[in-house]
Amino acid sequence: MKVLVVGANGQIGKHLVSFIQENDSLEAKAMIRKEEQASYFENLGAETTIVDLEDDIESITKAAEGVDAVVFTAGSGPNTGPDKTILIDLDGAVKTIKAAEAAGVKRFVMISSFDTTREAIQAANSSFAPYVVAKHYADEWLRGTALEYTIIHPGRLSNDEGTGKVEAAETVERGKVPREDVASVIVATLENDSTIGKEYQVVGGTKSIKEAIDSL
Amino acid sequence: MKVLVVGANGQIGKHLVSFIQENDSLEAKAMIRKEEQASYFENLGAETTIVDLEDDIESITKAAEGVDAVVFTAGSGPNTGPDKTILIDLDGAVKTIKAAEAAGVKRFVMISSFDTTREAIQAANSSFAPYVVAKHYADEWLRGTALEYTIIHPGRLSNDEGTGKVEAAETVERGKVPREDVASVIVATLENDSTIGKEYQVVGGTKSIKEAIDSL
Repeated sequence: MKVLVVGANGQIGKHLVSFIQENDSLEAKAMIRKEEQASYFENLGAETTIVDLEDDIESITKAAEGVDAVVFTAGSGPNTGPDKTILIDLDGAVKTIKAAEAAGVKRFVMISSFDTTREAIQAANSSFAPYVVAKHYADEWLRGTALEYTIIHPGRLSNDEGTGKVEAAETVERGKVPREDVASVIVATLENDSTIGKEYQVVGGTKSIKEAIDSL
Repeated sequence: MKVLVVGANGQIGKHLVSFIQENDSLEAKAMIRKEEQASYFENLGAETTIVDLEDDIESITKAAEGVDAVVFTAGSGPNTGPDKTILIDLDGAVKTIKAAEAAGVKRFVMISSFDTTREAIQAANSSFAPYVVAKHYADEWLRGTALEYTIIHPGRLSNDEGTGKVEAAETVERGKVPREDVASVIVATLENDSTIGKEYQVVGGTKSIKEAIDSL
């Protein structure tokens, strides 16, 4: 299975491409923004394609042609300006969804935020709310498509080393999760078609990642 | 016909409430953010209701209960920060749409931006693009509902005195239009049910507003 990783140069993305390349049944195509980001992925033996999420849908569609799945793990994150939040986390995500449709790619894995419900928007403070709104509408857009989607809602991301163990369910208690473990959750999700049409929150836990995903 | 004007204290909103109150078959309920904004509307004999578009849907729903139409003419505009753009122009609009549905109000008139197409997003410069994205998704959301909607796309807004004359069509050449004339276009739209399901661009022109809207 060939996987377009959108946001490959992000912190989750780098782990993810590495794990995909180590996996015999998967291969990665890393979508990156700048030529100088390519060497990391080339060293892993991954194909690269240079597209900016502010480019038009056609550019992203070209990147998605010929792959079997798209993982959207790009994100300006909650710490960039809200201009990039709306252009990348919302519009970049929707353009990627449309590109997957246009390229005939059915499988789509979205890395969302822990809680993107209406309640979470209303509860967010004013600096975080724009980010939650952006992720809310991106998730909503994906739910309205005919794609074989999975939406992963990770807890508070940390750069701690992966533990290989998580808790995953439709709703779990808030908690931290290493980015490395989120990348492993994505791989386990791509390998298990019963995750299609589901969405789950993921935090650090006690189950092996494969077991946690397979039991969803 | 009782009309909830969302964004009544805005520059179009103030003209609109005034025109509605002058019209024998219409009456306005002005949705405003602050108590101190009420007197202008009370002097026009209009009902007021105090709701912030950052409040929850239930608060907006209460404001919409018992009215026959909702006009969304709120907007942070292109000159506020993009945090408010996403919270008001996108999420505030969608919350108002959901509130209309929850309150059983069928008629909805959206004051959009001149061009909210995908092409306009891609063509916009980086400071204007977040605003176009927000309006794009608000319009898209409305199109996906069962509401009896009209989407009005005014040209570059000016504070010039109204001329009573516009050009209105699905697409027209870019141009200016006085806010006062946009308010008159909204009234003509509310009075003509054949505008339901339509959207049109509006700029200054040579046809009387009623004629321009009735011939759409």
